[in-house]
Amino acid sequence: MIAISRAAQSMTSSAIREILKITQRPDVISFAGGLPAPELFPTDEIRTATDRILTDQPAAALQYSTTEGHLPLRRWIAEQDGLAPDQVQITSGSQQGLDLLGRVLIDPDDVVLVESPTYLGALQAFSPYRPRFVELITDDDGIVPEALDDQLRTLSAKLLYTVPTFQNPTGRTLSAERRQALLEVTRRHRVTIIEDGPYNELRFRGERLPTLFELALADTPDPDELNVIKLGTFSKVLAPGLRDAWVQGPRAVIDKLVLAKQAADLHSPTLNQMIITELLDDVLPRQIKIISEAYGRRARVMIDNVAARFPAGVTCTDPDGGMFCWVTLPDAGIDTAEMLAAAVEECVAYVPGQPFFASGEGNNTMRLSYVTSSEAEIETGIAALSRVIAGRLADGPPLR
Amino acid sequence: MIAISRAAQSMTSSAIREILKITQRPDVISFAGGLPAPELFPTDEIRTATDRILTDQPAAALQYSTTEGHLPLRRWIAEQDGLAPDQVQITSGSQQGLDLLGRVLIDPDDVVLVESPTYLGALQAFSPYRPRFVELITDDDGIVPEALDDQLRTLSAKLLYTVPTFQNPTGRTLSAERRQALLEVTRRHRVTIIEDGPYNELRFRGERLPTLFELALADTPDPDELNVIKLGTFSKVLAPGLRDAWVQGPRAVIDKLVLAKQAADLHSPTLNQMIITELLDDVLPRQIKIISEAYGRRARVMIDNVAARFPAGVTCTDPDGGMFCWVTLPDAGIDTAEMLAAAVEECVAYVPGQPFFASGEGNNTMRLSYVTSSEAEIETGIAALSRVIAGRLADGPPLR
Repeated sequence: MIAISRAAQSMTSSAIREILKITQRPDVISFAGGLPAPELFPTDEIRTATDRILTDQPAAALQYSTTEGHLPLRRWIAEQDGLAPDQVQITSGSQQGLDLLGRVLIDPDDVVLVESPTYLGALQAFSPYRPRFVELITDDDGIVPEALDDQLRTLSAKLLYTVPTFQNPTGRTLSAERRQALLEVTRRHRVTIIEDGPYNELRFRGERLPTLFELALADTPDPDELNVIKLGTFSKVLAPGLRDAWVQGPRAVIDKLVLAKQAADLHSPTLNQMIITELLDDVLPRQIKIISEAYGRRARVMIDNVAARFPAGVTCTDPDGGMFCWVTLPDAGIDTAEMLAAAVEECVAYVPGQPFFASGEGNNTMRLSYVTSSEAEIETGIAALSRVIAGRLADGPPLR
Repeated sequence: MIAISRAAQSMTSSAIREILKITQRPDVISFAGGLPAPELFPTDEIRTATDRILTDQPAAALQYSTTEGHLPLRRWIAEQDGLAPDQVQITSGSQQGLDLLGRVLIDPDDVVLVESPTYLGALQAFSPYRPRFVELITDDDGIVPEALDDQLRTLSAKLLYTVPTFQNPTGRTLSAERRQALLEVTRRHRVTIIEDGPYNELRFRGERLPTLFELALADTPDPDELNVIKLGTFSKVLAPGLRDAWVQGPRAVIDKLVLAKQAADLHSPTLNQMIITELLDDVLPRQIKIISEAYGRRARVMIDNVAARFPAGVTCTDPDGGMFCWVTLPDAGIDTAEMLAAAVEECVAYVPGQPFFASGEGNNTMRLSYVTSSEAEIETGIAALSRVIAGRLADGPPLR
């Protein structure tokens, strides 16, 4: 019998993983996965680009490459924010960016501030480095900077992890005023912000807001002096299966990320980085438009159907972009994790909200994604879910 | 200024990394990298397979997928050793397999036994988990099992990491008798073997030897009861830039690897796994034949030229397969790391041997790869290297 490390003994299968399995059942309308709409993938353009790369530069595409990533890709990313290429590290999905940042920044018992709820993949990525997660006070406009300032009077925190735009799981967006205030408070208390921005481009309503990284650069022109590290990805705007994302920030962090990635997997696949690079100029802006518009229509159908059908007292966020909305049931006695089996019986799936809370609360919440289903499926699925919720509310809270 | 974790403070740039940079200079004949010969990549077949995948199954190739890996690929790998697919985890290169095994198996201060010298990427992958490395006694036939038995009388070790076939860096192969003895000794002392087999298929002389995993299965038919975990890769036999490799072993380990990989990068790129799967039946066996024969010819040219030209007292291994031979200079006072600059001046590069020793010894050793250069380049490069070594030996040892 092979002895497992203490760290691995505490690893248990996650909700996301089990739910990805449910979503593979073809008869289930799944609002569970964060899966981009596959019918919108730029398949033909990817096929053409791949063929061109494997015709013109096969050896470069198939050989070992540098840990930092494909230089033309890093250069393009860097230029978006006026950075140098060595302030950008390519990663295999943002999940790897989070893992490597955990390695490079977190010592055991360091305080990491997270939204309540927060992206569960970040909790999973950081947990092996044994931080102490502390939940931030949030409302419909995101993190409340004044409350953070209060918290930091008595708490010494190292990192603050946030998805400020179209947050996963709630779909909420941090308001413009609060962005500036958040930067001011974190700088004063010497807290480093990890800004995760996978959905930034997927706005279907309202005006674009500057990222925290952009705002910080406006105040501190030398990127090496920033207290913000940003993660970006091509997963939501091109194709997640290629696994291409990045981390940008001060060289002191990026230099260590390079070393951490070298030990972790040497480098991300070269071919995939070259495919993405070929798509940057023409395909990417067009895809952003196509995807945002489609997701906007689907979001509208979902939110309108939720409002029309869900029982009184159920609340749902109404996001301006991204992939998710967030439902809270009126009765804290209802456990959405436990209710999921009944929902799947009715051929509809969602993600129970509790795993998104570092504190373990949120039993009466759920995340719904509107991006993988057609508008007709969304109507049908919300009607089914509405019946399941109404049934539970009629039953009253279970005995405890 | 962002505070770096204690673990990251100890990360420093590695020899391999700096050397990969040197190899990019076109005028240098590089025996340094472990880069497969790019002119032998099955480029046309990869292009055709990719086109077919992106025509027939674009959504599957470009969408998020399961952490375990593409099932048809896992099934094929599993069948080679009579395993079930859930005894196989796909990884992004064997480097990721080593990192995830470190996470899942190593607690701080656990003893990990390694060959002397050993694969430096394994030392890098395991180091973040803070094991205590202990060097095994080895000779030209690899690990000496009797010496290991002696060591284990007074030492409690958890893991033994080995590349038994065409080892990196020495090119040595563990003899058939010693394989059986190694299994017996490790079982008796309850040590788990991590068998790394990237070069197994690249034999150009002699008869195939069974892997440790195969031998262990012959004694212990239930794979879940084995004390051997095996790593395999498609990097050396198809193309490293696709980053497709695997770990196979008992479910208790694989189940934890799945969870560790989920936190580390969610999954390896789907498209790449599908490309490899398309090549398994026809292209892979043909490539193995083509590559092995070419590497055999190049190895012969290198070994013969080393024997004919290198100064008296220099020794070099004579491998039966794989990618590397290992040179030891007669004078322990010569530092091959320091000599590298002089070699690059003569337009030839190698990897200094010292980083391959957990103990930090081996200053007078170097690793030479014969696979990336043509036979003519090998002649030229060995002649140049011979001049550099002869010059150093004539100078006598430096003052210390």
